[in-house]
Amino acid sequence: MTNFNETKALFHLPAGVVYLDGNSLGPLPKAVMERLDQVATREWGEMVITGWNRAGWIDAPTRVGNRIAALIGAEEGSVVMGDTLSIKVYQALASALELVPDRRVILSDTGNFPSDLYMAQGLIGSLEKDYTLKVVAPEDISAAIDDTVAVLMLTEVDYRTGRKHNMRALTEKAHAHGAVTLWDLAHSAGALEVELSDVGADFAVGCTYKYLNGGPGAPGFIYVAPRHHGKIRPALSGWLGHEAPFEFDLNYRAAAGIDRMRVGTPPILALAALDAALDAWDKTTISDVRQKSLELADRFIAGVEAQCDMLTLATPREHEQRGSQVSFRFEHGYAAMQALIENGVIGDFRAPDIMRFGFTPLYIDEDDVDEAVRVVAEVMRGALWDTPRFKKKSKVT
Amino acid sequence: MTNFNETKALFHLPAGVVYLDGNSLGPLPKAVMERLDQVATREWGEMVITGWNRAGWIDAPTRVGNRIAALIGAEEGSVVMGDTLSIKVYQALASALELVPDRRVILSDTGNFPSDLYMAQGLIGSLEKDYTLKVVAPEDISAAIDDTVAVLMLTEVDYRTGRKHNMRALTEKAHAHGAVTLWDLAHSAGALEVELSDVGADFAVGCTYKYLNGGPGAPGFIYVAPRHHGKIRPALSGWLGHEAPFEFDLNYRAAAGIDRMRVGTPPILALAALDAALDAWDKTTISDVRQKSLELADRFIAGVEAQCDMLTLATPREHEQRGSQVSFRFEHGYAAMQALIENGVIGDFRAPDIMRFGFTPLYIDEDDVDEAVRVVAEVMRGALWDTPRFKKKSKVT
Repeated sequence: MTNFNETKALFHLPAGVVYLDGNSLGPLPKAVMERLDQVATREWGEMVITGWNRAGWIDAPTRVGNRIAALIGAEEGSVVMGDTLSIKVYQALASALELVPDRRVILSDTGNFPSDLYMAQGLIGSLEKDYTLKVVAPEDISAAIDDTVAVLMLTEVDYRTGRKHNMRALTEKAHAHGAVTLWDLAHSAGALEVELSDVGADFAVGCTYKYLNGGPGAPGFIYVAPRHHGKIRPALSGWLGHEAPFEFDLNYRAAAGIDRMRVGTPPILALAALDAALDAWDKTTISDVRQKSLELADRFIAGVEAQCDMLTLATPREHEQRGSQVSFRFEHGYAAMQALIENGVIGDFRAPDIMRFGFTPLYIDEDDVDEAVRVVAEVMRGALWDTPRFKKKSKVT
Repeated sequence: MTNFNETKALFHLPAGVVYLDGNSLGPLPKAVMERLDQVATREWGEMVITGWNRAGWIDAPTRVGNRIAALIGAEEGSVVMGDTLSIKVYQALASALELVPDRRVILSDTGNFPSDLYMAQGLIGSLEKDYTLKVVAPEDISAAIDDTVAVLMLTEVDYRTGRKHNMRALTEKAHAHGAVTLWDLAHSAGALEVELSDVGADFAVGCTYKYLNGGPGAPGFIYVAPRHHGKIRPALSGWLGHEAPFEFDLNYRAAAGIDRMRVGTPPILALAALDAALDAWDKTTISDVRQKSLELADRFIAGVEAQCDMLTLATPREHEQRGSQVSFRFEHGYAAMQALIENGVIGDFRAPDIMRFGFTPLYIDEDDVDEAVRVVAEVMRGALWDTPRFKKKSKVT
């Protein structure tokens, strides 16, 4: 069993704060600055251009990708880093659509992160064929999978409510109907067990600044099932996805394997920070983190519900149906979250009425949860929510 | 006039080395580590999620973009940072093609950086219409501009030979024929005067790890002429290019201005390193850098030509027709460059026979040039180029 006191010691947490927003941006791992110093001062500073080979920068996207692969049940050599989650959605979706050339429907849900939907809309706008992005309610997704669907594109865990899809069942159903799947793991990777290979997922994408603590704007990742590697055409065909980038051929030839999903020159400083952050996973396992996260979340739910009847749980109670965040609905949620932050409990707010709290055992423990419950109860009791001041503050601009 | 001793003092240069490869990767500015420490330790570490607003991270892509704009003759609010040069080529080209909906030819040349051609090939592969990427020799570009061309897509300075296109004349001719222009400034930004606004360029893209010294894999930039801002549809329509990203609307609505070319969450650590690197430009001007670079390059050419008759100048002699690098052709160029590097002169090699040397006055001075000339002459004299050893080493793998 993981010693979570040990993992907590790996992070710098601001004094006097209970940080329950790791589902949005993970805190600073103490190892990051030393790694940045090594890469900037000793590698960039001393090796300059020769660092691409001598320091192994050129392979960083696949080397770090393999570390992520181990956390999401993916095969070695099936994950590569780069760009952002949004760019990776575009890449995956463009390739996925071409695997099912005779269909025109991209199926998603209203719980998907908007950027995923926007990227699909942008791609559709560039294609001549009459593609449709069909967006249904999360609870209607399974029923909407039929033989017209080319790609089922979902975020596993809803960024607002924390509701979790059944990836295995939906993937199986999609495959039974001849569709391919694209899973966004933004709120899954580093939060709960993902078994991409075992589930038979086709494509997956994710970010690394939430539960993987890579820092603000840390690189995205893309997974492609090995069975598809040889078949997919990269829409974003950049030079580092070329079979032989340093031949400087005028014509693109896709690299073998996941390398073909590389695009441009990789962000070495950002990858170094992420790589240092991933060292925390040497001290724990996803299943330990998941189990502890559920315990902390249950403790928070019980504490809050016992004292704050104005807050309504938006997150499913069943463990299998939720991720690692807990969301409450409250009419004046924006104002309440501002008050919580002023009082040292950092969560966040999502329109129209969702207060989000993330339970990340790498650095959050029972004492933090109890303190958060105490502050939430105090803030909820202390404010006159019906006054004009709060009504006004509740509007998001 | 710039005091280039002062700018040289801003950089860390490896001991015992003359670094003539700033055209590939600029050296480490001494200010970078302190800035990274500030952003990681004081902002990420202490503010965590609130850094997006409190530390102004959310505006970093346009704030740094405006600093780049000032170096390339672009209007305030017309440049934004993000992703990589290759991604920015795709974005610009996709939007450019839609401005000329009745034409099907993308015109480029064999001197363009291959990744630009690859991205165009990838985009064409996604489009249904029968687009053609027409690639001619650099000297034939002007004659190839006709009324069939939708987009003229060129890199201003050839990455191999250093030959520089006449951006003004080609842009004018393209416009006269109803085409729009996409200029890659990879070897221009920070190296020579670029006057995007004055020239009337439509789109431009670039990287920041060469002459702008942002570090390995530093973010790319994109310029769109303000007259096009309201008209272009972003193909890569990510959430931070949305008119109101934090409304989490399910439908994309493009932001006003250059913000619509933003895509995903910006890379804050990388932008911080770049921002620190750009401080060097507070102590000089592009015109001073350009003039000094030409002086250093001329000094190098004269010195090498006086002593090394095996090397053939590949770079045009006329100042207006070249960038800030000098290239020589040599049959055993790969082996010769290896020998130079072993002897403390770092340039690089591009297949099949190009030895490249960059002259970057921010940190290279006359003494460096004289030392480089001495070592080049010694290496060229000292080796038995006709032996099998060198023949073998000349092959690029």
